[in-house]
Amino acid sequence: MVIFGGTGDLTHRKLIPALYHLAYQGLLPENFAVAAVGRREKSEEVYRQEVLQSVEKYARFEMDQKVWRELVERIYYIPFSFEEDEGYKRLRDFLEKLDQGYHTGGNRFYYLAVSPESFPIIVERLKSNQLTQGEGWHRLVIEKPFGQNLDSAQRLNEKIQEVFLERDTYRIDHYLGKEMIQNMMVIRFANSIFEPLWNHQYIDHIQITAAEQEGVGSRGGYYEKAGALRDMVQNHILQLLAITAMEPPYKNDAEAIRDEKVKILRSIRFKETMNMHEDVTLGQYRGYLQEQRVDPNSTIETFAGLKLFLDSERWKDVPFYIRTGKMLKEKMTQVVVQFKKPPLFYSHEGEEVQPNLLIIRIQPEEGAVFQFNAKKPGTLQQVVPVDMNFCQNCHIGANSPEAYEKLLLDVMEGDASRFTRWDEVEQSWKFIDSLSDCCTNKKELLETYSPGGWGPIKSEELLLRDKRKWWNL
Amino acid sequence: MVIFGGTGDLTHRKLIPALYHLAYQGLLPENFAVAAVGRREKSEEVYRQEVLQSVEKYARFEMDQKVWRELVERIYYIPFSFEEDEGYKRLRDFLEKLDQGYHTGGNRFYYLAVSPESFPIIVERLKSNQLTQGEGWHRLVIEKPFGQNLDSAQRLNEKIQEVFLERDTYRIDHYLGKEMIQNMMVIRFANSIFEPLWNHQYIDHIQITAAEQEGVGSRGGYYEKAGALRDMVQNHILQLLAITAMEPPYKNDAEAIRDEKVKILRSIRFKETMNMHEDVTLGQYRGYLQEQRVDPNSTIETFAGLKLFLDSERWKDVPFYIRTGKMLKEKMTQVVVQFKKPPLFYSHEGEEVQPNLLIIRIQPEEGAVFQFNAKKPGTLQQVVPVDMNFCQNCHIGANSPEAYEKLLLDVMEGDASRFTRWDEVEQSWKFIDSLSDCCTNKKELLETYSPGGWGPIKSEELLLRDKRKWWNL
Repeated sequence: MVIFGGTGDLTHRKLIPALYHLAYQGLLPENFAVAAVGRREKSEEVYRQEVLQSVEKYARFEMDQKVWRELVERIYYIPFSFEEDEGYKRLRDFLEKLDQGYHTGGNRFYYLAVSPESFPIIVERLKSNQLTQGEGWHRLVIEKPFGQNLDSAQRLNEKIQEVFLERDTYRIDHYLGKEMIQNMMVIRFANSIFEPLWNHQYIDHIQITAAEQEGVGSRGGYYEKAGALRDMVQNHILQLLAITAMEPPYKNDAEAIRDEKVKILRSIRFKETMNMHEDVTLGQYRGYLQEQRVDPNSTIETFAGLKLFLDSERWKDVPFYIRTGKMLKEKMTQVVVQFKKPPLFYSHEGEEVQPNLLIIRIQPEEGAVFQFNAKKPGTLQQVVPVDMNFCQNCHIGANSPEAYEKLLLDVMEGDASRFTRWDEVEQSWKFIDSLSDCCTNKKELLETYSPGGWGPIKSEELLLRDKRKWWNL
Repeated sequence: MVIFGGTGDLTHRKLIPALYHLAYQGLLPENFAVAAVGRREKSEEVYRQEVLQSVEKYARFEMDQKVWRELVERIYYIPFSFEEDEGYKRLRDFLEKLDQGYHTGGNRFYYLAVSPESFPIIVERLKSNQLTQGEGWHRLVIEKPFGQNLDSAQRLNEKIQEVFLERDTYRIDHYLGKEMIQNMMVIRFANSIFEPLWNHQYIDHIQITAAEQEGVGSRGGYYEKAGALRDMVQNHILQLLAITAMEPPYKNDAEAIRDEKVKILRSIRFKETMNMHEDVTLGQYRGYLQEQRVDPNSTIETFAGLKLFLDSERWKDVPFYIRTGKMLKEKMTQVVVQFKKPPLFYSHEGEEVQPNLLIIRIQPEEGAVFQFNAKKPGTLQQVVPVDMNFCQNCHIGANSPEAYEKLLLDVMEGDASRFTRWDEVEQSWKFIDSLSDCCTNKKELLETYSPGGWGPIKSEELLLRDKRKWWNL
């Protein structure tokens, strides 16, 4: 594993701790080593001390000295600047030595934990310095964002495809490594009772919420170029939508799964038929303009709410409501499936019964809740909604793996199911670009909302207009 | 309310405590009074003391002196023997006085909490002494057993129908007053997601278990004339089967519901097409022959296991396995709906995934469990069955009403939904008689089983033969 950005935040907070977790569980292959590349000059000794501190701070398991010693001895630091050819040559020589020492068979993956501007140059230099040829496989792992719109994503992709095959390109969307998102496919397809109900005949609508409690913090500079649509909808939320709505893949493998996901992305109705002023809600939290490195006249959205339809047999007339935003009431990512109501007649005393809900909780809670109607305990005949609960991380000692653990293991094993294929990225950008053309950066369409609530009032109206409501359960 | 058997066990343990519970919850009508009839001479004062003791012993609420005083002042004791006309005359005069004092409008219900031999004589004397005519309604509440076979049930019913209309006859099956059995109809019909799955397309089979941990105890004399089929299957279990399998009633009322239930009872395949030696399992627990008042050569069954089919579109080829017995491992009444398996392909690493189960727990736990497949938390891709739980009586302070509370209120309100209509009783006896003709009281068909297990080995074979198993969850 070669990490570009070896001294960066991602490496310290996520990658090295994830490697430690894998080692702790005995899941790391024996012939594994890490070459961390960073701009800064420092000795291996110092680097190893730094990553130890990170593991002590971020690991979800206790420190096991033996496990750590065995891991850290395999972590090397090679300082050079991403532009200088000489550094790549040193890296090549070093990796060849590692290949021998660790019997890697020449298998390598390059993890680009650097800012996106550096992606093209690194990829190009890897090739020109013969780091992507020879025995074994050569894979590229690339962090988000993958472009800023369709055009830049295409250009970036062309650069990459000059060097790496599509099947060797692993575009990380860390949401896809989260426990409950992996679980969604299992729940949908390894059970017999969900699939028959999973269509427009029984489902009234679907809600997807990805709410954050925090503001942009120190990331104002990045956020000014992104906004909620690019930062959250283009990747995480459209992926979540695809997994929720996809047809069963004919086979449990990466290509079959991604074939089905891209079909969903392609079936999203585009702006030609969307009523933009009703179906799109953009907001900015009060106080955003005062954040660090934010333009005081910024029209960037920190909240996006959308109503979408999929043009498919299965989802005929079923709206998908999605919302994401910063500075909301709580941190919460979930999918709510609202089923159609049962015949009115069974509601006693003329009161309408509640619809059935299946809530899939992705974070911070992980689990599923099924809300259905039952008799209220007691002598009178009243019908009330009750919950059936399955909680993946509620019980004591639960300790869900971090997304990066699974994803790193996937890269080593060559399983790309949980990574985004180019056609998915392309299709997502097409959709986001269509929204950008019409709606973003327009002061008159941007509604200010108060921190600590659920976003702009227009977000509530998005559902109220259809006699529905957001479930903040 | 006139109780025949006012000094009996049922009155003390169930009826008077249930009245107290209703009074405590403010559910007892103001113009309500009780006339308890018993053979034994005793003063009202003494009788009221005795019922106080019962309430102190059996009530589920704390003693509220004010509530109790208001209730007990309405409880009267009239001693006479059920055969003597003179007693009925005294009762009539007394009730007329109560009618005036409590403004009952002449409404009365007669509760027969006596042994079945006395049913005909009491009913006849009520009529001959003009106790079933005049203003207001006159209802009869009759405890089980309702006959010992079709013939005796028909004779008893004829006697009753000479005096009471079918719609005024309330045949108690206290199972129908249990919280979760009332809830089963709500769960099935006040939700939109169960009904689409509730048929042979999605359900593999259904299991109904009513297990008791105790033996016959002091009731050997009664049990020798009954056995598991008459004591449990003819009433409780066939009712449970009917509620599980019935079509949605066109309306939420007594006749519509019972119309649907009797259709299920009529659709049970009879012995002509049942393979008796494979589909019927009878057992007797080791030690039964030594119980009090039991014939040492008795061939009475204390366990019955059956495999049934319903001849209906909905339940084509879906077996219903039922079992009931004494001296089993635990006290537990539940219905398990086992759904068909999902496509094999989604089981990872070639292991078969478990089928989905919906377990409806009736007693002692009350609730529902849905067992489905999910990803095992962790980095590896394993599929495991997990539970979603809804527990009606688990949370602290839960205090489910006793069946008799609901049932007494039903009688006063004239809601017969939770009582057995004559055609249901008739049809149940037809089925049980067909089994009796072939199988009961035959030593060679009776398998001895050890106390503390799940009954005879043949009961396991009943399912094993079909590559299924009992779920003792």
